[in-house]
Amino acid sequence: MAQQIYPLNVGVLGATGTVGQRFLVLLASHPYLRVHAIGASPRSVGLAYPKAVKWKQTTPIPKAYRDLNVSACEPGAFAGCKIIFSGLDADVAGDIELAFRDAGFAVFSNAKNYRRAPLDHLAVVRQQQQELKKPGFIVTNANCSTTGLVVPLAALERAFGPIDTVLVTTLQAISGAGYPGVPSLDIMDNVVPFIGGEEEKMVWETKKILGSLADTSTGFALRDEMRVSATCTRVPVIDGHTECVSVRFARRRAPDIAAVRAALSAYTCDTQTLGCPSAPTQAIEVHDAEDRPQPRLDRESQAGAAVSVGHFVLLVNNVCLGAATRASSTPRSPAHRDSLLSASGGE
Amino acid sequence: MAQQIYPLNVGVLGATGTVGQRFLVLLASHPYLRVHAIGASPRSVGLAYPKAVKWKQTTPIPKAYRDLNVSACEPGAFAGCKIIFSGLDADVAGDIELAFRDAGFAVFSNAKNYRRAPLDHLAVVRQQQQELKKPGFIVTNANCSTTGLVVPLAALERAFGPIDTVLVTTLQAISGAGYPGVPSLDIMDNVVPFIGGEEEKMVWETKKILGSLADTSTGFALRDEMRVSATCTRVPVIDGHTECVSVRFARRRAPDIAAVRAALSAYTCDTQTLGCPSAPTQAIEVHDAEDRPQPRLDRESQAGAAVSVGHFVLLVNNVCLGAATRASSTPRSPAHRDSLLSASGGE
Amino acid sequence: MAQQIYPLNVGVLGATGTVGQRFLVLLASHPYLRVHAIGASPRSVGLAYPKAVKWKQTTPIPKAYRDLNVSACEPGAFAGCKIIFSGLDADVAGDIELAFRDAGFAVFSNAKNYRRAPLDHLAVVRQQQQELKKPGFIVTNANCSTTGLVVPLAALERAFGPIDTVLVTTLQAISGAGYPGVPSLDIMDNVVPFIGGEEEKMVWETKKILGSLADTSTGFALRDEMRVSATCTRVPVIDGHTECVSVRFARRRAPDIAAVRAALSAYTCDTQTLGCPSAPTQAIEVHDAEDRPQPRLDRESQAGAAVSVGHFVLLVNNVCLGAATRASSTPRSPAHRDSLLSASGGE
Amino acid sequence: MAQQIYPLNVGVLGATGTVGQRFLVLLASHPYLRVHAIGASPRSVGLAYPKAVKWKQTTPIPKAYRDLNVSACEPGAFAGCKIIFSGLDADVAGDIELAFRDAGFAVFSNAKNYRRAPLDHLAVVRQQQQELKKPGFIVTNANCSTTGLVVPLAALERAFGPIDTVLVTTLQAISGAGYPGVPSLDIMDNVVPFIGGEEEKMVWETKKILGSLADTSTGFALRDEMRVSATCTRVPVIDGHTECVSVRFARRRAPDIAAVRAALSAYTCDTQTLGCPSAPTQAIEVHDAEDRPQPRLDRESQAGAAVSVGHFVLLVNNVCLGAATRASSTPRSPAHRDSLLSASGGE
Repeated sequence: MAQQIYPLNVGVLGATGTVGQRFLVLLASHPYLRVHAIGASPRSVGLAYPKAVKWKQTTPIPKAYRDLNVSACEPGAFAGCKIIFSGLDADVAGDIELAFRDAGFAVFSNAKNYRRAPLDHLAVVRQQQQELKKPGFIVTNANCSTTGLVVPLAALERAFGPIDTVLVTTLQAISGAGYPGVPSLDIMDNVVPFIGGEEEKMVWETKKILGSLADTSTGFALRDEMRVSATCTRVPVIDGHTECVSVRFARRRAPDIAAVRAALSAYTCDTQTLGCPSAPTQAIEVHDAEDRPQPRLDRESQAGAAVSVGHFVLLVNNVCLGAATRASSTPRSPAHRDSLLSASGGE
Repeated sequence: MAQQIYPLNVGVLGATGTVGQRFLVLLASHPYLRVHAIGASPRSVGLAYPKAVKWKQTTPIPKAYRDLNVSACEPGAFAGCKIIFSGLDADVAGDIELAFRDAGFAVFSNAKNYRRAPLDHLAVVRQQQQELKKPGFIVTNANCSTTGLVVPLAALERAFGPIDTVLVTTLQAISGAGYPGVPSLDIMDNVVPFIGGEEEKMVWETKKILGSLADTSTGFALRDEMRVSATCTRVPVIDGHTECVSVRFARRRAPDIAAVRAALSAYTCDTQTLGCPSAPTQAIEVHDAEDRPQPRLDRESQAGAAVSVGHFVLLVNNVCLGAATRASSTPRSPAHRDSLLSASGGE
Repeated sequence: MAQQIYPLNVGVLGATGTVGQRFLVLLASHPYLRVHAIGASPRSVGLAYPKAVKWKQTTPIPKAYRDLNVSACEPGAFAGCKIIFSGLDADVAGDIELAFRDAGFAVFSNAKNYRRAPLDHLAVVRQQQQELKKPGFIVTNANCSTTGLVVPLAALERAFGPIDTVLVTTLQAISGAGYPGVPSLDIMDNVVPFIGGEEEKMVWETKKILGSLADTSTGFALRDEMRVSATCTRVPVIDGHTECVSVRFARRRAPDIAAVRAALSAYTCDTQTLGCPSAPTQAIEVHDAEDRPQPRLDRESQAGAAVSVGHFVLLVNNVCLGAATRASSTPRSPAHRDSLLSASGGE
Repeated sequence: MAQQIYPLNVGVLGATGTVGQRFLVLLASHPYLRVHAIGASPRSVGLAYPKAVKWKQTTPIPKAYRDLNVSACEPGAFAGCKIIFSGLDADVAGDIELAFRDAGFAVFSNAKNYRRAPLDHLAVVRQQQQELKKPGFIVTNANCSTTGLVVPLAALERAFGPIDTVLVTTLQAISGAGYPGVPSLDIMDNVVPFIGGEEEKMVWETKKILGSLADTSTGFALRDEMRVSATCTRVPVIDGHTECVSVRFARRRAPDIAAVRAALSAYTCDTQTLGCPSAPTQAIEVHDAEDRPQPRLDRESQAGAAVSVGHFVLLVNNVCLGAATRASSTPRSPAHRDSLLSASGGE
């Protein structure tokens, strides 16, 4: 611990995709994580990152990556990386992430593949390691729309007790579909009232995240008694999912606006408590203006790590909060850093 | 009745606005209504219509209007018109429509001003005339989003009994705001989660339309026991409001999908029964594909007079159905034509 | 000729693509062509057309095709078709169109593959047949942006003599790229200042179309002395290419605006002279308003068969005029019909 | 000079408009200019800036302005301001800027009103002061599209000699029209091929900027012998004007691509030489990729102070470079600061 262990070398899988690009932007300015290796599809292997990627961010490729070559997504190419962040597509994430876990890596993944794995929960990482008798593990972050939804729900439950019904309609941005993603002929001057698999994810993952830890072979127990109904639409917005939410409390009448406002504003989340560098200053940014939040104006709030809430509407930066920021949050204080280190197999 | 009374001369107020333009397009091909006079703001008076209007339709100005001069919105300029259609803005509609009514005209208005007037109901037009001792009257059509909502709700109630709760989130097109309307800087790559006054209109007008006729000095009784909650957003779509609706029935469990589908498909509305030329062939067009309806693909369905419904989502062409078509529907059969005629002061 | 030869059976290759869909819409209302068979990719073969296609038109699939099954793109499946219209992608058009030609079919293609073939010219179809000793032939229409450009250029040359220099900047719609085509992440709130291969096509094809017929083994001679420079950009427009053109005449000063206007308005093209049903009433629609033409307002002018011109700017409906309409124009008068018939192998 | 004269107090007129908002964003992080007073329309006077403004930037209102009250646009309210930056609309700028000049202020204006004033040139500011016998003066920056055009033209002329012909087609973003600016119904899925007054500005201002200083009562002489032709269009882009340019050199053939590339990359402008804090690192950013520059990807390059150039296409951030950055550039070195100070009437 007296040794110079920081910066910590990390690796990014799926580095050329939409999520991967955002991981790289966030990590470029991280105080103690340093991207040591990046992986992408076979056709990109060996190329300098700028040559391999169709860079879609509005800021240029950070200097740190201009001479970094793309590796294959194989554990051997990532030796020395203490943490692996995965932005891989679901169709390749399954096998690749498993290989990294089996090779002893700590994998934090945005892919959906392991979100329903019994021990997929940050609090039971050790249990994963014990059961598999390996130092590696996989922990996922939730689907983007779900992440934005559960933060205010958690705040409301903390203040007012359990919610038994949630109805949500989402207006999701095109970046959520990756690249090439949504054809322009589909979405220009249009709304598509369906996103395959999205509604199921929102329902199931909300019940998981707002559920509880379990003392069973499953790390978590779903909130089965909560009824969640979601309609997910795609709108002609580049970044930033808007969600219109209605909730009902199990044991009380709806609180008044002022109380709701206070509960949302007061809410602090784990990343803030732990002092993660990329944690927002304010977990939930409450807007009083009737016509807020709006994607174009509020999606970069606090570098995309906050959830903005207005009247019945919340906004989450789908790529930052929904994917990259949550996964790359790391604790700031020594005690917590070290606990993460040991979990990930470092000294 | 043996006389040549058709085509019937009609007038259009607010002819240069978005709603007025659509009225003119629809009336240009009407089998027995003929636009005889048009009114717009003072600065347009005396100009040939093409010179006065900022034409925003994708089809050219119909020939019939190319040499038609704009009149002032004064009853005197509309002598001979049996019916007046009003697409006036709310800020001028109040006084002007009243003047026309007092001058004996039958006014069908899209403006919101008289929607809450006690006798604003097609079925009690005669009561209006009796009370005011004038042959004129004003009847309004509902706000565009409400019109799209109530049609499927009426179909569901007809088949399954009363609905006690309605939650709706709308994704409204920019044409609903008129011209110049929504600034492009507000809506490009954005969602605006608020439309002033829209939620109140949807709630109140839904309770009126799904309410009942009354035997009181009020022509209608609101459906007070129905709880309606609306969130209205603006999205970057040109025409066609999308609405995501959840309902709960008062006295029964939710019917299954097949039953709902059948009820919606089977529904016929008054304009169809009466044989109006601009009535849709199918009042509610049900889509089975998961990703339908979509504004760009379905808004012109049946010349915009239908409401398209898919999974939990309905689509209404806000300018056609929501404004112009409903107001300009006239009965086809002689009996009904004549009853309308006599109500409007004709022979 | 006394026999009932009309309607003429025709076939459409690439029926599920953007161009193919437009062919089908235009042919559905054609007075004497009838779609008898349609071809698409192997995965669509055997399916009813509505099931095979991702229909992207704003009008529904015409009734005539709702029970029409998709065939393989093989000559055997198109027996009885007098004319084959091809909207195939360039990567498959080469072999398939050749096979149809060799099997004796008259192929009118939108694909680029044979645009540079020495005998690719409507006027020398017979020469194709003689050289190949087959009744079949392939004739192409030009690239969409070129088609819009050459019509006004031809009109100007007819009136004012040869043009020696053409500079054009295009603002092309997304439909020109087919489906899925341009990713929304590429084009939303953006301009892409490059369309692969487009500038070369515009330059070469303009020189061909404004060139002359040749008495050589080549059917046409390029206008080599004309300098053409093109910059092609993609803009967030769904349909309708806008082009900003500057020309210089070889032997005279620029004519005044009134003379240019008259020349453009007076221009009639072959399809009009021959009386083709889908010919525009006015080949070039001249707009006097400074802010016209505009894609959204003018692209459907005359069912998309016209080129709209304003101050220095022209607009062409890229899918209609640029692809489908030109190819499917057929003569109206008996003499011309019959000449086409005999060229295509009919009696 | 030994005194603490920095930070220098400045004032911003038209602080609530699009240009004014951008001035405020740039000035918030300026090392030695400090916004001391802001002016807007009468209805905003007395309000705290956040209450008065419809903030349209994607970053929040800088802290410095959250408690700053709006003043009237009167010289008396701006006492102590060494420099006045004006983002006023042309319809009010004339009188107001004159009043400030006559009251002794140094006014740097984005408005078009004085761009053609005989002594409107940074180099002859003293001549203005001498002629008017006042310490105040007005100097304007050019129209946004012109600013982007002249930088590469100047670079090319520096390397290859005079240009005699310029043809330019612009694809301008909606922010250039201010707020509410372009109605969404005008620009969604559309191109508007005309921007009132824009072409004349580009032609005239280009001839002024690429002209020379004069020894007459006029501070500058137009480049009359240069022929400039512009077509200005509006496209559905939020920020960033794209321009397609063709030039011809007066005395030589077109240089090859490599030479052009080198000339553009090597170009340095006055603000760089003078060491202004907001000067770009590279005045012209040359892109080799065929499909660059693109507004969404390149408009924030170097905080919007650079002009990006690719193949035949240049991109300028219309609000930054075209309006705010140029006006607010101030020299970094003491000698130059002081010379500016004395010209502006400071000690």
